[in-house]
Amino acid sequence: MTSKPNAIGRPSRDRQANQNQQENQQKEEPAVAAPVWSVDPRTGKQYEQVAEEAGPAEVDRAVRAAHAARTALADRTARAALLRAAAGLLDEAGERLVAAADAETALGAARLTGELARTTYQFLAFADTVDEGAFLDVIVDHADPSAKPVPRPDLRRYKVPLGVVAVYAASNFPLAFSVPGGDTASALAAGCPVVVKAHPDHPATSELCGSLLRRAAAEAGLPEDVVTVVHGFDAGLELVRHPLVAAAGFTGSVRGGRALFDAAAARPHPIPFHGELGSLNPVVVTRAAAEERGEQIGTGLAGAMTMGVGQFCTKPGLVLAPAGEGGDRLLKSLADTVGGTGAGVLLDARMRDAFAAGVRERAELPGVQAPVVPGAAGEHTVSAGFLAVPADLLASGDPYGLLLEECFGPVTVVARYADEAEIGAVLGRLSGNLTATVHLGADEADGKAGQGAELLAALVPLAGRVLVDGWPTGVSVTEAQHHGGPYPATTSTSTSVGATAVERWLRPVVYQSAPAALLPPELRDDNPLGLPRRVDGRPER
Amino acid sequence: MTSKPNAIGRPSRDRQANQNQQENQQKEEPAVAAPVWSVDPRTGKQYEQVAEEAGPAEVDRAVRAAHAARTALADRTARAALLRAAAGLLDEAGERLVAAADAETALGAARLTGELARTTYQFLAFADTVDEGAFLDVIVDHADPSAKPVPRPDLRRYKVPLGVVAVYAASNFPLAFSVPGGDTASALAAGCPVVVKAHPDHPATSELCGSLLRRAAAEAGLPEDVVTVVHGFDAGLELVRHPLVAAAGFTGSVRGGRALFDAAAARPHPIPFHGELGSLNPVVVTRAAAEERGEQIGTGLAGAMTMGVGQFCTKPGLVLAPAGEGGDRLLKSLADTVGGTGAGVLLDARMRDAFAAGVRERAELPGVQAPVVPGAAGEHTVSAGFLAVPADLLASGDPYGLLLEECFGPVTVVARYADEAEIGAVLGRLSGNLTATVHLGADEADGKAGQGAELLAALVPLAGRVLVDGWPTGVSVTEAQHHGGPYPATTSTSTSVGATAVERWLRPVVYQSAPAALLPPELRDDNPLGLPRRVDGRPER
Repeated sequence: MTSKPNAIGRPSRDRQANQNQQENQQKEEPAVAAPVWSVDPRTGKQYEQVAEEAGPAEVDRAVRAAHAARTALADRTARAALLRAAAGLLDEAGERLVAAADAETALGAARLTGELARTTYQFLAFADTVDEGAFLDVIVDHADPSAKPVPRPDLRRYKVPLGVVAVYAASNFPLAFSVPGGDTASALAAGCPVVVKAHPDHPATSELCGSLLRRAAAEAGLPEDVVTVVHGFDAGLELVRHPLVAAAGFTGSVRGGRALFDAAAARPHPIPFHGELGSLNPVVVTRAAAEERGEQIGTGLAGAMTMGVGQFCTKPGLVLAPAGEGGDRLLKSLADTVGGTGAGVLLDARMRDAFAAGVRERAELPGVQAPVVPGAAGEHTVSAGFLAVPADLLASGDPYGLLLEECFGPVTVVARYADEAEIGAVLGRLSGNLTATVHLGADEADGKAGQGAELLAALVPLAGRVLVDGWPTGVSVTEAQHHGGPYPATTSTSTSVGATAVERWLRPVVYQSAPAALLPPELRDDNPLGLPRRVDGRPER
Repeated sequence: MTSKPNAIGRPSRDRQANQNQQENQQKEEPAVAAPVWSVDPRTGKQYEQVAEEAGPAEVDRAVRAAHAARTALADRTARAALLRAAAGLLDEAGERLVAAADAETALGAARLTGELARTTYQFLAFADTVDEGAFLDVIVDHADPSAKPVPRPDLRRYKVPLGVVAVYAASNFPLAFSVPGGDTASALAAGCPVVVKAHPDHPATSELCGSLLRRAAAEAGLPEDVVTVVHGFDAGLELVRHPLVAAAGFTGSVRGGRALFDAAAARPHPIPFHGELGSLNPVVVTRAAAEERGEQIGTGLAGAMTMGVGQFCTKPGLVLAPAGEGGDRLLKSLADTVGGTGAGVLLDARMRDAFAAGVRERAELPGVQAPVVPGAAGEHTVSAGFLAVPADLLASGDPYGLLLEECFGPVTVVARYADEAEIGAVLGRLSGNLTATVHLGADEADGKAGQGAELLAALVPLAGRVLVDGWPTGVSVTEAQHHGGPYPATTSTSTSVGATAVERWLRPVVYQSAPAALLPPELRDDNPLGLPRRVDGRPER
């Protein structure tokens, strides 16, 4: 694996060369930095020291270098070139990247090849977004001396980049939600330099991606410091507290994300913190749907909940299925398919332990059954399974609230309901989610029978994405996509996937009565950049 | 003044009738509620008990009633009708409103009549925003089975209201930033019911406005509980912590706003807090500008800094003027005009004391002069004035940092600079601002000489609105307006004035593969509501 000096965490191989530099740093911080290792989750063995954790002085240097690079990144043409170069270099390095990520995550070459394609596509899509420039939200209101109730001055507004963005990489997507992920790509698209705090589950992949992104910057004629990778838990906290960090993006656990959110809010000058923390992703299967295609839904559910060994943030973690014959068929096909799923390897040993403990605690609740028992299996693997519970019990409050908390890994909870009131009672106990899904009967989908529209309306307050007759695990990268939802799904109202993700890293500025000669080109009357904009209350293109 | 039961704080006149209700409440909270009085700032005398402070049970009732009203408010046509009815009723009650507000704030009939016109205009403008529906941000991406890298499902996104919004009224604008102000109007436009925490400086005006807005709701066929007014400091804290409150808007001091921001962030489920806290509003006068029209700039500055007795959030609180002859003329005309300004009444005695103390502390700093001494004058009035300091001293750090903090009232600080480097040194010490202004010479404005564009670029990071050759005190209500800026100007990247203020109270939701029959009309292919939208990557109108 690589250990290019692209990361501020000092590459271990260059220690000799860094001797002098290290001595200079001794006034600021101890020279003994914790090593960062790649670990093979299939064996639990450390197999390569990749870098060292960044201390406060190194985080400070990374942020200051990023801050200094922001002026160059203000050039939209260069930004688009950077994004396209990044896509190209990631593609070229595909085999190495997939091998590196698989060695550290055990997610498998097929899944990681798909994730890489999604990652490079994301860069290209954001390059198109930058080219179009609609996200600049240009609004021009010309002066109007006769306006009521008072005369109006000339006002011209657009959006400018916030500054350095701290990105916290996710464990479960070593590419698409990590160093080269959507947070990084959207921040760069907005014109914000990025310092990424790598996830400890894939430091070598992170280093490799960091070096590719820095090379892409150089190819686009930009300073390499528009992207820097740092390692270490403490470095992550330093980062969110740094005075020159202007915003943060995070994908991870509720506990970790909340700690960073709290640190961002407690700063002397608080900053926006866009965190994706946790989601149960409820699924409602109507009686008609279960009767019409219980088996098919059960098989689909099995695929969705075991995809990526149940380590998707959009894994369906709660399914409301009807009591009775249709629901029975659903559970049988779910049991058959999940039972036939081989053991899988989770991202790290801590997650494996948490999964085993979480499943055990849930299964021990009175009235909860485990038609297929999930849990630890072998020294480094886990087996998929699911729990079943009557919906009225689930809606009865503690201790059953535990079943309504996300359990990361290949398990889901099926709640059997007797009637619609029990569906409502369970939904009424849910926190916010990334997704909420309903499976409808054919007549319900056509609006000819049942309460399809009412069910959808009941799901909207619970989630940022509402699906019909599908599974939430795939998150398509399009303009309309919204990957976010009420807390704890996200800590803001924004999305981390799709074109509008760029909005997170911008703030509006309005020029009042600025002479034409001094206006930025984005705001000039003749619109030299051909930007979509609103002028005097009307869209103009 | 009125004491209609529109506020949850129980009107004092109805005490007998409320006896039973009060007894029922004794289980929840003590029946002894603090009285809320109108105070005449011209005499310091309480002259009418308007209501009582709301206890926890009353806040809870207000929020629950608002929450129950949210479904009715989802109807955009009714919302627009409500906004227009509100404008009409406020207009009709104009004389009463102005008299009530003047009695409580001493701001004067002329200023308050203008503020009322702005307030009603704001309702009408938001009604037009609701009608057009561009803020719904509709994006439709049709399914594409041949999309790369993977097939795409049908995705349709728009924005939905967040839920109940808590609004914290400002002291200095009893209408335009209070009960019927921009936060309330934009939240209602977004479809969010509002509970307003009235400002203690104008409770009677707040009650009257609350009753008018509730009547407007009734006229539009909506529940009156879409707007409720509560009184009391503790009620404000209860409100921001209430589980059914989904977002908050605030205009006021850094201390008060930060306490509420912290409470919003510390909730089990944090909520967006859009606070406008404080702003110094720096003004740079170039040497050329001072030489060309020093007197005129001095007179303009005097008007801006004494407008509303210096109680505007956009009051220019720091002016960088050149040393030398042009700057001397500026100061002389400033001194002449400010010195000729009569004594004024501040909003309340606490502010008067804070102003006197703040001015004294600043004037005592070594090297600071007071060409016109500001401070307390008479028992209930203050006189306007300004301080002068060399820019290099101001840029030298503590204790001069105090001069870079907002001092609410009719005072400004003029820093005399020797060269451009001193301008940069002072700007480098500033926090975020609502506005930043530059006065340029004619050739600088034309781009023929000087560094006009560079100066503007240096001001952009400091503020949300950048003005040339004007004064920031007027905030025009238009689509392009942005009234916000880096912390502490605002706690978010949003605006509290202008059409885009509505964005604060919305979150996106995307429907995936929802059958046509179940889609909300906003997202249907045939676009029955005629909304502006993007379809498959292109704007469509």
